[in-house]
Amino acid sequence: MNMRVMTSVKAMQQHALGEKRAGRKIGLVPTMGYLHEGHLSLVALARAHAEVVIVSIFVNPIQFLPGEDLASYPRDFERDRELCTRAGVDLIFCPNPEEMYAADHSVFVEETSLSNVLCGASRSGHFRGVTSVVAKLFNITLPDVAVFGQKDAQQCRVIQRMVRDLNIPVEIIVGPIIREPDGLAMSSRNKYLSPANRKRALCLRRALATAERLVQAGERSIMPVKLAVMAVISEVPEALIDYVVFMDNETLEPVSEIQRPVLAALAVRIGGTRLIDNTILG
Amino acid sequence: MNMRVMTSVKAMQQHALGEKRAGRKIGLVPTMGYLHEGHLSLVALARAHAEVVIVSIFVNPIQFLPGEDLASYPRDFERDRELCTRAGVDLIFCPNPEEMYAADHSVFVEETSLSNVLCGASRSGHFRGVTSVVAKLFNITLPDVAVFGQKDAQQCRVIQRMVRDLNIPVEIIVGPIIREPDGLAMSSRNKYLSPANRKRALCLRRALATAERLVQAGERSIMPVKLAVMAVISEVPEALIDYVVFMDNETLEPVSEIQRPVLAALAVRIGGTRLIDNTILG
Repeated sequence: MNMRVMTSVKAMQQHALGEKRAGRKIGLVPTMGYLHEGHLSLVALARAHAEVVIVSIFVNPIQFLPGEDLASYPRDFERDRELCTRAGVDLIFCPNPEEMYAADHSVFVEETSLSNVLCGASRSGHFRGVTSVVAKLFNITLPDVAVFGQKDAQQCRVIQRMVRDLNIPVEIIVGPIIREPDGLAMSSRNKYLSPANRKRALCLRRALATAERLVQAGERSIMPVKLAVMAVISEVPEALIDYVVFMDNETLEPVSEIQRPVLAALAVRIGGTRLIDNTILG
Repeated sequence: MNMRVMTSVKAMQQHALGEKRAGRKIGLVPTMGYLHEGHLSLVALARAHAEVVIVSIFVNPIQFLPGEDLASYPRDFERDRELCTRAGVDLIFCPNPEEMYAADHSVFVEETSLSNVLCGASRSGHFRGVTSVVAKLFNITLPDVAVFGQKDAQQCRVIQRMVRDLNIPVEIIVGPIIREPDGLAMSSRNKYLSPANRKRALCLRRALATAERLVQAGERSIMPVKLAVMAVISEVPEALIDYVVFMDNETLEPVSEIQRPVLAALAVRIGGTRLIDNTILG
């Protein structure tokens, strides 16, 4: 069957209602497009859990802050369409911003606890944009399961909290980080990197691997691990640390000892490009 | 068939999913209990639009502000159950607060425009509580239609905006204000009124009737209508005006002329009880 492409909220919602009435399980992979193998791994997960796989492609204006890369965020719909067709996606939902947000749009979904650390601290309002658009996408595509990537670890936790607290009838599946052969976490924003910065960007994964080795060797205290991580990154003078954080993987509260699984998360700016990566320790 | 009573979020959601899979249309009437004929008129509307009628009874703590009547809000579940049975309700959903809100609940739905006037101005945070709980109730009971009363006119507009902006797949139906034989708008809070204040409370409807008469006689300017309304209320010295407002019925923006339908809304305190009423002019 041919892949459908829908741009209308109303048509998409009617179609999703029809699929549900027919008893078919819907899986959603929300994306901002410019797809890479990371996204396609999420599509494969959705396929394993659902009969109808929908990929949404929407560069969501309200999760970008003033001065961020909304206008320049990479877009290539024809390439995305081709990748989705090959991946066996059933439907692409790609509304334009006017279709998603009325001129007098005034309702937002806000997570008020987990959103305030990490990317939420340096990008205030970002997660309000994420939770609002994901709530909308859930209501429009009515998924039984929705798949998100662990690379955006905080986003995953915030969305899981939203689903719990608003009782949204969807199962959230988190797919593992997919990496380039040399270890760089796949991201649409990697495209911004010059060849030299592309090599420098490897310090993120190198730093996390150092943390993993220390913990595997028996280290349970965070401070020496954090210092080692920062030391690896500071070997690259062009790499500016936004944050290096170790948090309880569930509550995102800062920890000083590894007792339960700990999320080690990095955000680093290299040549103007903000890169994130993370791993789970312990 | 016997009316069901459910208190578990998970069981309610599973039951609603089952009804939907069976192709049955669900109608929800969200209430805080202590039901009166106003609520029962909403149940009748739900019955006319749906095959399964659910009444939720939940005194929602997060829409009460500190110092408001959360603890003393009237409750009588046995009476509510009896009224629902007689009204042909299929299911009462009556969770307790712990079932609805985890100790670390942190996600809210917020309407940021219509919520800031009237009851939102004097009860900051009230509508965030309303939109959040209604979003939850929609996700738990999965209604095709939900019925609200025009007495809470601002609440109706805020919820219609939420449904629009979050693309919630539900149709909102607004039922007319139901009044006692002498004209007082029915409200669970009328129970707070002493016999003397019960008579004084008639000034709300009397004031709105004056406004209707003036407009029917050709008045299109708001100021003389507003002065007449305030004059009627001030005939009762015990009646303290919280607001007397005339707004565009869609946008809730203040108006000075009647060109499109205008919502005339009152909030008045009598003996410590806050009463609201409204009418649509023009």
